[in-house]
Amino acid sequence: MLTKNQFNAARSMALTYFEKAGIALTDEEKESIEVADFGLSELENTGLELITYVNTGRCCAKELILFPHQTCPEHRHPPIEGEPGKEETFRCRWGEVYLYVEGEPVKEPKAIAPKGREEAYTVWNEVILKPGQQYTLYPNTKHWFQGGIDGAVISEFSTKSRDEADIFTDKDIQRIPEVGE
Amino acid sequence: MLTKNQFNAARSMALTYFEKAGIALTDEEKESIEVADFGLSELENTGLELITYVNTGRCCAKELILFPHQTCPEHRHPPIEGEPGKEETFRCRWGEVYLYVEGEPVKEPKAIAPKGREEAYTVWNEVILKPGQQYTLYPNTKHWFQGGIDGAVISEFSTKSRDEADIFTDKDIQRIPEVGE
Repeated sequence: MLTKNQFNAARSMALTYFEKAGIALTDEEKESIEVADFGLSELENTGLELITYVNTGRCCAKELILFPHQTCPEHRHPPIEGEPGKEETFRCRWGEVYLYVEGEPVKEPKAIAPKGREEAYTVWNEVILKPGQQYTLYPNTKHWFQGGIDGAVISEFSTKSRDEADIFTDKDIQRIPEVGE
Repeated sequence: MLTKNQFNAARSMALTYFEKAGIALTDEEKESIEVADFGLSELENTGLELITYVNTGRCCAKELILFPHQTCPEHRHPPIEGEPGKEETFRCRWGEVYLYVEGEPVKEPKAIAPKGREEAYTVWNEVILKPGQQYTLYPNTKHWFQGGIDGAVISEFSTKSRDEADIFTDKDIQRIPEVGE
């Protein structure tokens, strides 16, 4: 669980990334930045800061922030409600992202899985995204990603987002965060 | 029809807008910026510059540029192939946009329809978008939009884009552009 202080610090830090990337947010949006620690209470290692611009029954757009070497853990988006699962395109806007996608193994990856949790990560198909570069991930494909040395700002364009349906490899993970007092 | 010179000038100008908005493009993307004059040969008045980041069977993301007072003409996205028509969210990234959406009439609009073509425009529901502000447009709803005094950069998040299926109010319009020698 995140403490209220940790949550506020992460939100303030995320704002500095939006500024560095030149992305304008409304005041309401600044107050609604989501901080996900995935229930692990190790936000610096495993976490994600994000804002959802739109999420209808048909499509979704978000802005994702990764702090330096912060990891969004391995997961997939399974078929749901008669649909083939979430399809998503990650477009790097600022910084650098190391993305790993189900496929061929990689020998010397740029990213290192969070310490003590290595079993929940597979190092395969390494995709390095710099500003202006993007990658489209098809449904139900396992993936994880990590911010580079300066962190990253990433636009996500996708079909409907249902975070509660995501399946994580690490069984300790709980996607919907709890924030303490 | 656009001449090759007009096309190149518009593409170069569009690049300066991406720079002003702090949006990174790859070299390939810079070479694939689309310039649409809608077949009217009055690009300064009626036109749009854009890049499509992704357009799959399920979702689409684009970046749109409007030069100062340049208008994307009134149109709608009808139901197609058993789907309810394109749904789109416009998010202003830079500059200002005047968006008109089927609804209640407006008496003193900020935008003026392109001269000689006023009959093809209806001034209703005025939505003014500044950086960080956005609007979601549901399928088959007539709309048009114009860049403000400095122009605009707009992210569009949507379901599948099928430009050739769009229905324009102005019967002279031809969505898929021709470029001369």
